[in-house]
Amino acid sequence: APSYGVEKGVDFANYFCTYSYLYHQKEMLSDRVRMDAYYKSIFRNRDHFEGKIVLDVGTGSGILAIWSAQAGAKKVYAVEATKMSEHARALVKANHVEDIVEVIEGSMEDVTLPEKVDIIISEWMGYFLLRESMFDSVICARDRWLKSTGIMYPSHARMWVAPIRSGLVEQKQSDYDSAMSDWFNFVTDTDAYYGVDMSVLTKPFRKEQNKYYLQTSLWNNLHPDQVIGTPAVIKEIDCLTATVDDIRNVQAEFTSSITIERSRLCGFAGWFDVHFLGSPANPAKNEIELNTAPSEEDGTHWGQQVFLLHPSPRVSHGDAIKVSFLMTRSEENHRLMNVSLSYEMVQPCGTSHSRVTSKFYIE
Amino acid sequence: APSYGVEKGVDFANYFCTYSYLYHQKEMLSDRVRMDAYYKSIFRNRDHFEGKIVLDVGTGSGILAIWSAQAGAKKVYAVEATKMSEHARALVKANHVEDIVEVIEGSMEDVTLPEKVDIIISEWMGYFLLRESMFDSVICARDRWLKSTGIMYPSHARMWVAPIRSGLVEQKQSDYDSAMSDWFNFVTDTDAYYGVDMSVLTKPFRKEQNKYYLQTSLWNNLHPDQVIGTPAVIKEIDCLTATVDDIRNVQAEFTSSITIERSRLCGFAGWFDVHFLGSPANPAKNEIELNTAPSEEDGTHWGQQVFLLHPSPRVSHGDAIKVSFLMTRSEENHRLMNVSLSYEMVQPCGTSHSRVTSKFYIE
Ligand SMILES: Nc1ncnc2c1ncn2[C@@H]1O[C@H](CSCC[C@H](N)C(=O)O)[C@@H](O)[C@H]1O
Ligand SMILES: Nc1ncnc2c1ncn2[C@@H]1O[C@H](CSCC[C@H](N)C(=O)O)[C@@H](O)[C@H]1O
Repeated sequence: APSYGVEKGVDFANYFCTYSYLYHQKEMLSDRVRMDAYYKSIFRNRDHFEGKIVLDVGTGSGILAIWSAQAGAKKVYAVEATKMSEHARALVKANHVEDIVEVIEGSMEDVTLPEKVDIIISEWMGYFLLRESMFDSVICARDRWLKSTGIMYPSHARMWVAPIRSGLVEQKQSDYDSAMSDWFNFVTDTDAYYGVDMSVLTKPFRKEQNKYYLQTSLWNNLHPDQVIGTPAVIKEIDCLTATVDDIRNVQAEFTSSITIERSRLCGFAGWFDVHFLGSPANPAKNEIELNTAPSEEDGTHWGQQVFLLHPSPRVSHGDAIKVSFLMTRSEENHRLMNVSLSYEMVQPCGTSHSRVTSKFYIE
Repeated sequence: APSYGVEKGVDFANYFCTYSYLYHQKEMLSDRVRMDAYYKSIFRNRDHFEGKIVLDVGTGSGILAIWSAQAGAKKVYAVEATKMSEHARALVKANHVEDIVEVIEGSMEDVTLPEKVDIIISEWMGYFLLRESMFDSVICARDRWLKSTGIMYPSHARMWVAPIRSGLVEQKQSDYDSAMSDWFNFVTDTDAYYGVDMSVLTKPFRKEQNKYYLQTSLWNNLHPDQVIGTPAVIKEIDCLTATVDDIRNVQAEFTSSITIERSRLCGFAGWFDVHFLGSPANPAKNEIELNTAPSEEDGTHWGQQVFLLHPSPRVSHGDAIKVSFLMTRSEENHRLMNVSLSYEMVQPCGTSHSRVTSKFYIE
């Protein structure tokens, strides 16, 4: 089963449909950090591609498949679930690699290839790496179609978390506050004008708005100055060996040291990097990194995922933030995530503040 | 079958899910024009409700069911497809009508009632009346559960179209133009930096952007001054007798006279009204109207649907706009609509301009 119990049409309505717009593909194709990393990973390691059989999982516009062909691949299978496959086919032809690149429309999980492949290349990374759960499809492809001597592009991935400061915390709190004060006016008016007492719905409405404004993680391209403590790696993935069980949950305990004087701990940011290192038997001549950390110049379309703390405690240089992080998949939609994040503050003097736990939704 | 071939889970992901948010129900409950009309239709015609059996199709928060009970109904069946049913049940209880209102969670199409009903009340109207195609479910309920002597609330509905002027026409054109000029930069850059010629995708990208910016109808609350010609009724529905075949397509030819000097015909606006007239055997003592026409004071959450013309011709007082209008359901999603609108201008001097046809999507 492609998506572990999720019905196919529903998965298409919720997930794949966005990828069938050229507008969306263009956004990814305009992300210079992303494009440069894949481009270099291929063209600075041509020896990996020359004369080889390549599989591009989720080819979208076909860009990675075309580059693989240009770098000398003998054959490229380019699999795409959406109708974008038709545009990919046109692009392949217009760039004169139609004898090498074969575009196949279908879910990776359903496709049968005529042979095993030397390389699997894929751009499968979602927000905070694992949102979308597309790496599941890459694992499926790898276990079925990669030769035992094969190479994964990228070969490694890591998830990072760091404490941050951000004006978003006040903004979201105020959005939430005005939604609730609106609600109370609404309850009063509905009773006065229409004779129905809505106050029994205040609690569920509060819960809904709280989730929307305060518990949903936010997309943001942070400035490096907004990172106020040491970042920590919370997950490392070897793309050649990781199983779906390895990535289903992300669980980590870490300590971050606050690196600036007198600030608020407004929350935490999560991001990822991936590396193109080849394989142990076939290491890359030129190792390439794709990094989505906060950066002054090199923002990506992934940005960072921000988890805000309400309230946000005061911190200062030298404070240790002991964090316990757990990310699981949403039960209703395996492509979305739930996060439980708890922290405890220990000041240099030794004073320790009690543990605070927050729940978040990556939607 | 509930939705004529659309799979249930998909219909839920695309359509019902929004209704499971209290935030969305609150928006409807805060629409004074809508609320006043239903409130008056019930409480100024109490004789219709007293001691009667009522069915509320798509009860949402339960508001219409609660009012029906307060107006003296003996029993109200309140059917709701989403989990909103749980909030409706709580609201019914908090307003002390739980002995009268029975909330049933399920699709109207699947629900079995223990008896036939005297009244079907429902707020089934979508943008431009028929978007969402929810009236199909009301028809299904009526044919199965309404007594032969029964009454529909509302009893009648009409669709209107009128020529308008609007600054949106320049705004959308300029949005489209900048999306296309962005695209051409993208094509140049991708060739220069990454060695791939994207120009073969210009045509489909243009089509996609054209559809998005220029062919998708817009939600707008127009000022009455923006209506520049006589409005026309393009559809009349008798809720007691209409069949799904009657509403699947809306086809009309009409002529509108321009009522102002020197303007642009920027496009057309579509809206609706519904009436609560009771039934022929049981006419309402007090006839109530719910009108969503452009209005200075009484905007509704439905607003009007605006169909823009690119280019927009000059018109003046006395010009006759001969319009041919056809609305059909989208093949991929029966709850969305396609519109084909063609017009021909005849000036008072007798000069007639050639017919122009535009296609639109109500998404
Ligand atoms: N299981 C699966 N089978 C086939 N295609 C898939 C898939 N899961 C995701 N995709 C496709 O994978 C693409 C990911 S976006 C990356 C597109 C392209 N490789 C690029 O780098 O620009 C989307 O087009 C999506 O539709
Ligand atoms: N076929 C169907 N069966 C049951 N509920 C339906 C339905 N089609 C639509 N609905 C529900 O009908 C509601 C329409 S919105 C109107 C809600 C409420 N009657 C009010 O007037 O405020 C939504 O809550 C939607 O989920």
